[in-house]
Amino acid sequence: MNIDIGNVLIDEAEPGLDADSLETLDERVREAHQRIADGRAREEFGYAALNLPETTDPDAIRQACTEVEDSETILTVGIGGSALGAATITAAIGDDETGHYVLDNVDPARTNSVLAEIDLAETAVHVVSRSGTTAETLANFLVVREAMTDDGVDWTDRTIVTTGDDGPLRSLAKKHELPALDVPDGVPGRCAALSTVGLVPAAIMGCDIEALLAGGEAGAESLAPSLFDCPAYAYGAVAHALDQQGAGVNVMMPYAEGLESFAEWFAQLWAESLGKEGEGQTPVRALGATDQHSQLQLYRAGPRDKMVTLVRPENRESLTVPETEIPDLDYLGNTDLGRVLDAEFDATEASLADAGCPNVRIEIERLDAHGLGRLLYDMQAACILAGELYGVDTFTQPAVEWGKRAARGLLGAGETAEARAVADKYCRRIE
Amino acid sequence: MNIDIGNVLIDEAEPGLDADSLETLDERVREAHQRIADGRAREEFGYAALNLPETTDPDAIRQACTEVEDSETILTVGIGGSALGAATITAAIGDDETGHYVLDNVDPARTNSVLAEIDLAETAVHVVSRSGTTAETLANFLVVREAMTDDGVDWTDRTIVTTGDDGPLRSLAKKHELPALDVPDGVPGRCAALSTVGLVPAAIMGCDIEALLAGGEAGAESLAPSLFDCPAYAYGAVAHALDQQGAGVNVMMPYAEGLESFAEWFAQLWAESLGKEGEGQTPVRALGATDQHSQLQLYRAGPRDKMVTLVRPENRESLTVPETEIPDLDYLGNTDLGRVLDAEFDATEASLADAGCPNVRIEIERLDAHGLGRLLYDMQAACILAGELYGVDTFTQPAVEWGKRAARGLLGAGETAEARAVADKYCRRIE
Repeated sequence: MNIDIGNVLIDEAEPGLDADSLETLDERVREAHQRIADGRAREEFGYAALNLPETTDPDAIRQACTEVEDSETILTVGIGGSALGAATITAAIGDDETGHYVLDNVDPARTNSVLAEIDLAETAVHVVSRSGTTAETLANFLVVREAMTDDGVDWTDRTIVTTGDDGPLRSLAKKHELPALDVPDGVPGRCAALSTVGLVPAAIMGCDIEALLAGGEAGAESLAPSLFDCPAYAYGAVAHALDQQGAGVNVMMPYAEGLESFAEWFAQLWAESLGKEGEGQTPVRALGATDQHSQLQLYRAGPRDKMVTLVRPENRESLTVPETEIPDLDYLGNTDLGRVLDAEFDATEASLADAGCPNVRIEIERLDAHGLGRLLYDMQAACILAGELYGVDTFTQPAVEWGKRAARGLLGAGETAEARAVADKYCRRIE
Repeated sequence: MNIDIGNVLIDEAEPGLDADSLETLDERVREAHQRIADGRAREEFGYAALNLPETTDPDAIRQACTEVEDSETILTVGIGGSALGAATITAAIGDDETGHYVLDNVDPARTNSVLAEIDLAETAVHVVSRSGTTAETLANFLVVREAMTDDGVDWTDRTIVTTGDDGPLRSLAKKHELPALDVPDGVPGRCAALSTVGLVPAAIMGCDIEALLAGGEAGAESLAPSLFDCPAYAYGAVAHALDQQGAGVNVMMPYAEGLESFAEWFAQLWAESLGKEGEGQTPVRALGATDQHSQLQLYRAGPRDKMVTLVRPENRESLTVPETEIPDLDYLGNTDLGRVLDAEFDATEASLADAGCPNVRIEIERLDAHGLGRLLYDMQAACILAGELYGVDTFTQPAVEWGKRAARGLLGAGETAEARAVADKYCRRIE
């Protein structure tokens, strides 16, 4: 992975950085890198995520998948960090033949529709929850399990569990002798893509999970005590510094359809890790070139509160646009479609620079297992570095808990003060 | 549709509004409503979009679709406003049997993958471009047309064109006697969902497009000169006023999987219409309950620069969670999955209010053709109203043009100053 930060340094960028401020920033990066390295060495909570490429055992994952490796469909039942990493990986490098469905919500219309669409007898179910009690996940799993039984499918033959050391899912796995994997120690869900949590569906699809981990390892080896030598830290440091200058919005805009889910994964990583104590950039997911016809107007002409992160692979698949008799379109004939996409990338980057909107360019060699592993790893390292610079607790998510307690109370799992607060809502309804 | 703005009025909301400022705002709404009504009466550019429910002819759309109404797959070739409305409608109310694919990008990997997946002999192609020269759309169309010919499929039997009065697509339609529909006069693409542009795939799927239009008509009838009597104007006015108080980010968070594309459609509408002259809220797409495990941490504990828009249907499909022997999960047994989702909605709303993050609740009766038509119409009316309050040119998108000229130049369609500017990029690359 490489990063080009030229367009945050230009005189016109607003907000922007100058060479002096980069030097000051680099001092802080050096210190933060040391803390991160120490945390990794001690396998501290969160920092341990950066050790996953070496601690994850791909053989154990393949072993757990043996019974269901010929499935035509994979159904991931999980939510948040238990689902997004897996979805990101299969969307980017999965094959076109195996369908990967994700039940990461509790919408009856969606669950009904997925169950109507897939053949449960040919489906591998991967249910993921560290605690084994996540309401959304367990509710969906109970529904799926019943649907399998109703269809005459033995659910114990087709279910893989990834969970913590104890809890209801662990007990269930033991009781029914299900293949069971451990969620990694000391790794929050949103940083667990390169572990059991993220790799099971990819393994069933036959993706090269070893290459994914090797890409992560290349990221680990690239970590260095200066932003000028380390693309991951350069990204985290520049994003943080731009935020301090007023870029409260960080637009993640990959120019590759396969990375659309990656932008969503990034949004979770960035928002949940850094959104604390009144700090944190708001991640906005976009997709090039499509969103040039949707969001670019705002980025170029709206408030100066944004940075744009443009991501692309340096090499793409080939597809030649045929020559045409249609007037005015002859310039497209015999062009590769990827060349059109890259021209749009270059044009957007220059258009933002021209308007003074700071943007950075991130490139991976190609969108394969190695390139994706590297990208995921580097973004996590960037986020952890940014967390050090913000001075927040990067690996917790305390603000999510209030709503969870309220929802549990509303569903009758014991009375909670939060559930009572819901009833006090002040209404001003307009019909 | 109804809207509840109680949670922007509470004392704790920051930013927030008080009763007095709402009264002042209502004065401006009254004037803006008059300008909008006048614009509609004169069928002025843009305002004409609010007349679509009465000017769109569903019979003409059904007529154009006759030859391909039994297709098992629909392929929309278009970009931005030419694709998002159609995708939003079929995602929300389409059937599960007919696949709707959208080629709204120029990624060779994606176009290759779609062509490998679908049976072109059973596919209806809808190609949409007002000018008939949009590079992304025409490049994809040329590829699809050749693929059909290679597969022995007569593309002229399976292609419907929606375009302007002249241009290459219109000529092509005439030459090959293709079913051709007009893009509506005076309506920018992003406001054209309730026209030929948005309704063709829905019609092929057998959706009730008359009910969609009737829902839009109900929205038209609800427009009134006071925000206290009109949910659409209440939304546009409150969003604008909160932006002026510092809520530069507007999170659109529907609690219904079928509305995930709607959030994307809204993001285009809001960003491209209002992002001008340094003004405009940044729309952020989210999905409840999924993104509670992703973004909520930031919304609750991050910077006070946000409003959150929560959307849901008042009635949902049914799906009962089975009773379970699993300890700690008995509270889920015999609950409807939709009740879990609604409990999460209520909990998130209260959690945001508790943290002082302003939020509004929008409800439609159910997620059917009528409810969706109403929602799309009301959001457009809200956006147009907000544009009046901002004082921007709601219906143009000048900042998109720079990049288009640059891309065309790079692809060899004549030299442009913008293409030359791309070559001047200042690089600071870190590897």
